This record gives sequence, C-alpha cells and structure tokens, in this order.
Amino acid sequence: MPQVEVCYSPQIYPLFHNEKAIVVVIDILRATSAITTAFYNGVAKMIPVATVEEAKALQQKGYMAAAERNGEMLEGFELGNSPFGYMNTKVKGKTIAISTTNGTQAIAAAANASEVIIGSFLNLEVVINYLREQQKDVTLLCAGWKNKFNLEDTLFAGAVADSLIYKGGFTTNCDSAIAAGHLYHLAKHNLFEFLANSSHRNRLAKLDLERDINYCLTPNQCPVIPILKGQYLVKL
Amino acid sequence: MPQVEVCYSPQIYPLFHNEKAIVVVIDILRATSAITTAFYNGVAKMIPVATVEEAKALQQKGYMAAAERNGEMLEGFELGNSPFGYMNTKVKGKTIAISTTNGTQAIAAAANASEVIIGSFLNLEVVINYLREQQKDVTLLCAGWKNKFNLEDTLFAGAVADSLIYKGGFTTNCDSAIAAGHLYHLAKHNLFEFLANSSHRNRLAKLDLERDINYCLTPNQCPVIPILKGQYLVKL
Repeated sequence: MPQVEVCYSPQIYPLFHNEKAIVVVIDILRATSAITTAFYNGVAKMIPVATVEEAKALQQKGYMAAAERNGEMLEGFELGNSPFGYMNTKVKGKTIAISTTNGTQAIAAAANASEVIIGSFLNLEVVINYLREQQKDVTLLCAGWKNKFNLEDTLFAGAVADSLIYKGGFTTNCDSAIAAGHLYHLAKHNLFEFLANSSHRNRLAKLDLERDINYCLTPNQCPVIPILKGQYLVKL
Repeated sequence: MPQVEVCYSPQIYPLFHNEKAIVVVIDILRATSAITTAFYNGVAKMIPVATVEEAKALQQKGYMAAAERNGEMLEGFELGNSPFGYMNTKVKGKTIAISTTNGTQAIAAAANASEVIIGSFLNLEVVINYLREQQKDVTLLCAGWKNKFNLEDTLFAGAVADSLIYKGGFTTNCDSAIAAGHLYHLAKHNLFEFLANSSHRNRLAKLDLERDINYCLTPNQCPVIPILKGQYLVKL
C-alpha cells in the first residue's frame, strides 16, 4: 500500500525525502494558491526561485516577475503573491518568475524529489484524484511560515491525507499525517472561522487581505495541477 | 502578557530560541517520564548526554548509567528509559547518566536556554502551576521521534499551552500551540485510545511496552519538577 506522510517544515524535509514519492508543495496563504490561479488563467510557465535576486535577474532577461516578502509585493516587480494579480489577460501565455517568503523555498527544498506538484484548496479535488490514480507514496510538504508550522497548510495536508487514507487505498505511519487529519475534521465546516486566531491569517488581516484569504480557502475553483519539470512549473 | 510557543522538533528549536523563556522538554514515551519518575523515587542528580559514548564514559567513572536507542535498553547499561527501572531503592541518592534516542537530544538542543525543566504527564499539574507562577515566556519543546513530529509529546504540549492561555494569563501567536491545544481537547478523555494509531505507540507495542505506555499517560503520579542546572538535572 502506498504511504502518505506530512512534513510541517521545509527545513526538516530531508528527513522525509523518499525517492519514490510524489511531493505536494503547500503554501495556502498565498503562494501555491497564486500559482494554481495563474495556470488556471492561462499562464504558460512559471520559474520558482528562492531568492529575490534570481527573480530580478530573470526580470532583466525579459520575463514577467513576481516577488513577495512578509506578505507584501516587492517594489519593482509586476506581481506579488495575491491570486487576484493573476486573474487578468496580461498573464496569458506568459512565463513568470516568482519568489515568495515560504512557498518557493519549499519548492526549492523538494527540488530533488522525483515529482513535485502544487497543491492548494483551489485545486484540492483534482490533486486528490491525481494522487489516487498514481498509487505512489505521497509527501505533503507544508511551506509553513519561515520554517515554522502553520495551520492553513496543515489543514490542506489533512484534507488530502485523510481522503487518500480513507478513500484512496493509502496508509500512514506518520503522526503528522494523523494530526493533520484530526485538525481538518475540526475545521472543515468553516475553515475561515477555524483560522480566525491563526498567526498568518492575523498577519495578512493587518495587510487588509481578507478578500485573498476568503478566496484561498474556497475549494475547487481552479481545477488544474501545476507540476515541476526541470526549473519550470507547467500545467500537468 | 507572557507568550507560550510549541516547537515540534529539536532540529528547528533555534527558530524558537528566546532568551527570556523557560523551556519545557517533553518526551512522553519515555525519557521525560522516566526522568520525572527517577526524581520522584529519590534520584539525586541525572546527567543527560546526547551520545551513548558519553554515557559509557561516565559509567566508567563510576556513575550509574542509562542508555536507550530505538525503544530498547542498550547492553552494558544498568537502566534504559522505562520508568519502572527507576522505581526501586537502588537508585535512591544516586547520580545517573542518561542518553536516549530523542529526549536527551532535545535537552541538548535547549541547553543554552535560560531555564530548562522536564515535563511529562506524570508531573503535568505541578509544571503548569510552576509556569503560571513564574509569568515568563514558555517554549514547549517536543522531542518527537528523530526530529519528526509525534502525537504524544504534542498532546502534553497542548495540555500545558491551553491551561496557560485560558487559565494562566498567557497568550500565543504560535500556530503549533493552537494546533496542540485542539488536539489535546480531542484526546483528553482517553489519551490511550487517541494514541492507538500513533507511530510511536505502535513502535513500543511491538516491544511489549503497554504497561509503560499506560503509566506514562496517567497524569500527576509524580509531583516533582526536574530542572537543568549546568550539566545536571536536579529536583527543583
């Protein structure tokens, strides 16, 4: 039976590395939600990079470029990590370089995995269906906040883990997968309410991003799966 | 208001280090349960060391010595990390060197904190009361299993965090403390049952340690607080 595991911090991802596993990178607020939205809106490719300098260098080569740190879009870039920035015709067919506080760090941490896909509530169901079809081991990698655990990424991991275990023929021997499943069951009837006291939701609320949060917590709006191929994210 | 935070892995403890905080090291199955039991049974001092070699060297200097790896007592040592080993008159007044798979690694990770105490369900209430009296920041450091998250340490962290926040005048901005509190509330009416599928409980069940697990999950049997003073653990 394929195994599902949940890793709460990119910093400890090496402890979870499994050559046979598909890694799902999760940064609900907001990098992986923005990336999912971008592909749903016709972006051709994205180049996730860990540092702002790399994003800048790609911008200078002529790419569109997105950069966010601590919840805010950086000056000199066309885009940040608000999904709403990717909902317009300007991005269609484009290749966009992107660097964010947590999400692109998590992608970099998992870059040596055999397969890396992007998960968010926006593509929850298609991700679950895809993983169920593959029947390979799965590592759900939460980007967290600066390598600390966060709730919203964990809830998404719990939704996927639970579905794979109870309806997908997967098993687990991983306490973080079990805990994430419990937390998802507590939260699922109102994710927004459950996250009312979470650290990152409060961080973003201060930046007046309630609209973004609501959008990012509403499942299945963008049924596409971004997948890493070499240095590029493309649509599966 | 003093803050409470929960760290799920000794490997990421540096992200949580706070000069003003009291660190509570937690390894429910079984190092911190064994240490609490030892002091309750009259052990004078313990010397927690990260490596088996250090424990061996101290044994050769004449100390009693305990060593455990992967749930089993190592050959050539008087004690492992089963609390039942510390419930006899031979240990009374002794100084015991101890090295375990996870617990003593967590103590080592926190060694530069201003104050380190030992927590387990066995001393739950006295630990909460002590922290409440101090009104300093608190970091609950879960030993986990080889730097991965585990459920039983998280449940204890949740019990303490919740009590400090709702009845102790503490606050938190830490998602892992919030998650641990939720998990504790799900589990508190039957910790043993809740942990039925947890990874470490199963690991120990294979070693026929159900009696140890039952003991370690029964609160308030040993109302003492071990505290780190230099290289020694002593009774507070």
